[in-house]
Amino acid sequence: MPASDMTVPSSVQPPQRVLLGPGPSVIDPAVLSALARPTLGHLDPAFLVIMDEVRSMLRRVMGTENELTFPMSGTGSAGMETCLVNLIEPGDSVLVAVNGVFGTRMAEVARRAGAEVTTVEQTWGRSFSADELRAGAGGKSFKLLCIVHAETSTGVLQDLVPARAVADECDALLLVDCVTSLGGHTLHLDDMGVDAAYSGTQKCLSCPPGLSPISFSPRASAVLAERRTPVQSWYLDLSMISNYWGSDRAYHHTAPINMLYGLHESLRLVLTEGLEERIARHALHARALVAGLESMGLTPRVAADERLAPLTAVAVPDRARAFLLSQFSLEIGGGLGPMAGNTWRIGLMGAGATRHSVTLCLAALRAALTEQGQDPGVDPLLAAGATYAS
Amino acid sequence: MPASDMTVPSSVQPPQRVLLGPGPSVIDPAVLSALARPTLGHLDPAFLVIMDEVRSMLRRVMGTENELTFPMSGTGSAGMETCLVNLIEPGDSVLVAVNGVFGTRMAEVARRAGAEVTTVEQTWGRSFSADELRAGAGGKSFKLLCIVHAETSTGVLQDLVPARAVADECDALLLVDCVTSLGGHTLHLDDMGVDAAYSGTQKCLSCPPGLSPISFSPRASAVLAERRTPVQSWYLDLSMISNYWGSDRAYHHTAPINMLYGLHESLRLVLTEGLEERIARHALHARALVAGLESMGLTPRVAADERLAPLTAVAVPDRARAFLLSQFSLEIGGGLGPMAGNTWRIGLMGAGATRHSVTLCLAALRAALTEQGQDPGVDPLLAAGATYAS
Repeated sequence: MPASDMTVPSSVQPPQRVLLGPGPSVIDPAVLSALARPTLGHLDPAFLVIMDEVRSMLRRVMGTENELTFPMSGTGSAGMETCLVNLIEPGDSVLVAVNGVFGTRMAEVARRAGAEVTTVEQTWGRSFSADELRAGAGGKSFKLLCIVHAETSTGVLQDLVPARAVADECDALLLVDCVTSLGGHTLHLDDMGVDAAYSGTQKCLSCPPGLSPISFSPRASAVLAERRTPVQSWYLDLSMISNYWGSDRAYHHTAPINMLYGLHESLRLVLTEGLEERIARHALHARALVAGLESMGLTPRVAADERLAPLTAVAVPDRARAFLLSQFSLEIGGGLGPMAGNTWRIGLMGAGATRHSVTLCLAALRAALTEQGQDPGVDPLLAAGATYAS
Repeated sequence: MPASDMTVPSSVQPPQRVLLGPGPSVIDPAVLSALARPTLGHLDPAFLVIMDEVRSMLRRVMGTENELTFPMSGTGSAGMETCLVNLIEPGDSVLVAVNGVFGTRMAEVARRAGAEVTTVEQTWGRSFSADELRAGAGGKSFKLLCIVHAETSTGVLQDLVPARAVADECDALLLVDCVTSLGGHTLHLDDMGVDAAYSGTQKCLSCPPGLSPISFSPRASAVLAERRTPVQSWYLDLSMISNYWGSDRAYHHTAPINMLYGLHESLRLVLTEGLEERIARHALHARALVAGLESMGLTPRVAADERLAPLTAVAVPDRARAFLLSQFSLEIGGGLGPMAGNTWRIGLMGAGATRHSVTLCLAALRAALTEQGQDPGVDPLLAAGATYAS
C-alpha cells in the first residue's frame, strides 16, 4: 500500500447541527456527557443498579407495569424485528396496517419470520379507521395486528382505540410501533391495551441512536413461553435476554454499557420534566411551527386531526434542504417512498421541541424560499408568535 | 403508584474500574471523549466522511481489501449472527468447530438459520489440529467451516492455517470469530484466506461495546449475491446495509452515530500506535502476567503454544473476584460453562495491556490469595519484572 494511504485520520470533530429532521433529534448535553462516563463491566453490581433504574424509568415513560420492558441492543429496526420474530412462528397469520415506510417494513420483517401476512393499505399521509382495519381483516382471525402509532415517514398519528377494538375482533395481539411517539405523544401501553411495542432512543427521548426500548404485556409474554419452535434470531431471543435483564443476570451478550448511560440520563430528563408537561410542550411547538408554515403558504401533508406533534410533513421542493444545512447547519428530513422529492419532514422532538427551534426553522425556511425565488409573504415568526401568545 | 416510587434516580456516576476481565476492556479517555461529541444525522455529509474513514481504518486493522467491511449496529453476537444468516440458506451444510462457548453459540445460531450443522468437538482449553478438523469433516463437503480464532471463554488461540486447509478440502468458506483477537493478535484476513469474520469493539480495540466489525471476502460476497431466499433477518441483511455503507447511501436503519465516533477514535489509536507494535505489546504484557502467576503457583489453563495474549485463563477459586472488585475496583472474569467456578479470566486488552495493569493485577491477586489463607510465596512482581528486563 503506498505511504500516502497509510496516514491516520484526525479525531472526529462533528459540526454542531440543529437536528430538526426525523431523528436523530437534538441531544441534551447532559445525555452526551453521560455517554462518556467510565465504562463498567456488564455484570458489575454497579451496572446492575443502572439497568434496574433504566427498566423502572422506561416502564413509567411507556405507561406500563409490564415485567418484560427493557432496551434492546440495536436501533429501532432491531426492536421491530425483536417483536416480530419472538411473537411469530412459521405459518402464523399476521395482519399489518400499511400507510408508510414503517408499516411496509413490518410486513416485510413478518414475512421473513415465516408469517402469512395480510396487509391492509391506507393512503400514505392518512390514518386508519376501525372500519378500514375491519375490512382488511375480512372477518378472519390473526395472531397479531401490527400498526404504527406514529408513522415517521409521513407524520401521521394513528388512534390506537380502533386498532385495539379490531384486534379484539380478530383474537389478535396488538403490536405497535411507537418509535416517534414515545415521550412526545400520549402513550400509555397498559391503558391502551398494547401487547407489544418497540421504540427508538433518537426521537422524542433525545438520546443518540443505538437502543430500542421494547415492552411485552403478560399476554404477549405468555405467547413467548408457549412457542413450539426456537426464535429464529439468537441475538434478539427474548427468552434469553430477559434472563439477563431479570433477576438471573445470566450472560447473553455484552450490553452496550455507555449507550445505556445515555438512555438512563434521557429517561431521567423526561421524568424530571414530567411526561404530561413534555407531551404538552411537543404539542405547543408543533402548533406554532404549523402556524408559521401556513403563514408562508406551506401546507402540512397531514390533516390536523391526525397529524403528529413531533414530526410535521410539508409539501415543498427538496433542494432547499442542502441550503438549510450549508447556511444554517440545520438538518431537516426529505421524503421517503412516494414522498421522496416532494416532502420535507420537520422534527421537533425532545430537546429540539423549543421556541428556539421553531424560530430558527421558520426563519431559515423563509430564507430558503426567498433564495429560490418564491415569495414567502409575511414573516412566519409573527404567526408562530401568535400561537405562543394565545 | 405511591409517591415514593415516583422519584427520579440520580445521573449515573459509575465507579472507575480497572477492567481486566474478558471485556469490556480499559477504555482510552480519548475514546470516551469522542462518544460525547455532537450527534450528526445518519445521512449528514460530515457523517458520511466519518463512515468512510471508519471503513478504511477497519480494513487496515483487519488486514483486508474486502469491499464489504464495516461495523454492524449491534454487539459481537450480532456480528456472529450477521455472518451466519447472510451466508446460510435453509438446508445448507455447515461444519462448526466447538471448543468453548462461542463455537457452541455459532452452532446454535447456524441451526436457527436453518443449516444442517455438523460439529467437531475439542476439549475446552485446546485448539484444533488439521487432522482433528479433517476427522470432523468426515470427507464431506460443507458450505461453511466456522471456527473461533480467539476463544474468549477459555483463552485458546486457534491457528487458522489448518482451518483454511481443511476448509479447502471441504469446498467451504472459512468463517472466523475474531472478537478477542482483532487488534491484539496477528490477524490478516486476506493473507489467512478468511472469507467472513466478525469482531467486537470492547476487547483489544478498547472501545465500549455496541458495534461489531464484520468483513466478507469477494467469494463470500458472491455467495450473498447468489442467494435464492431472503436473509431471515431484515436488520442484519447485508445486501441492504452495504447500500448504506457503500456509495448509494440508501437509508436502511439509523446508524448508532456516537458509538461510531468512539470506534473511529479507537481505530485511530490502533493505527497511530502501529498494529505490529500493538500486537507485540499484548504479547509482552501477557508473558509478564503469566510469569507472575506461575511464580505464585497459579498455572494457566491453556498450554503456552496455544494461549491467547489478550486473555489468560487460570485455575483458581472463584470467590476472590468479589474481593478484587470491592478492595481494588479491579474486574476480572469468572469461568463459563464447564469452567464456571474453577477458572478466572484475566484480560490485558488494548489500553489495558500495560505494565501498570500487570502490576495491579498480580499485587491484588497476591493479596486475594493471602486473604484466603493461601501462601502465594515470592512476590509475583519480581517474576513479572524479570520478563520486562529480559
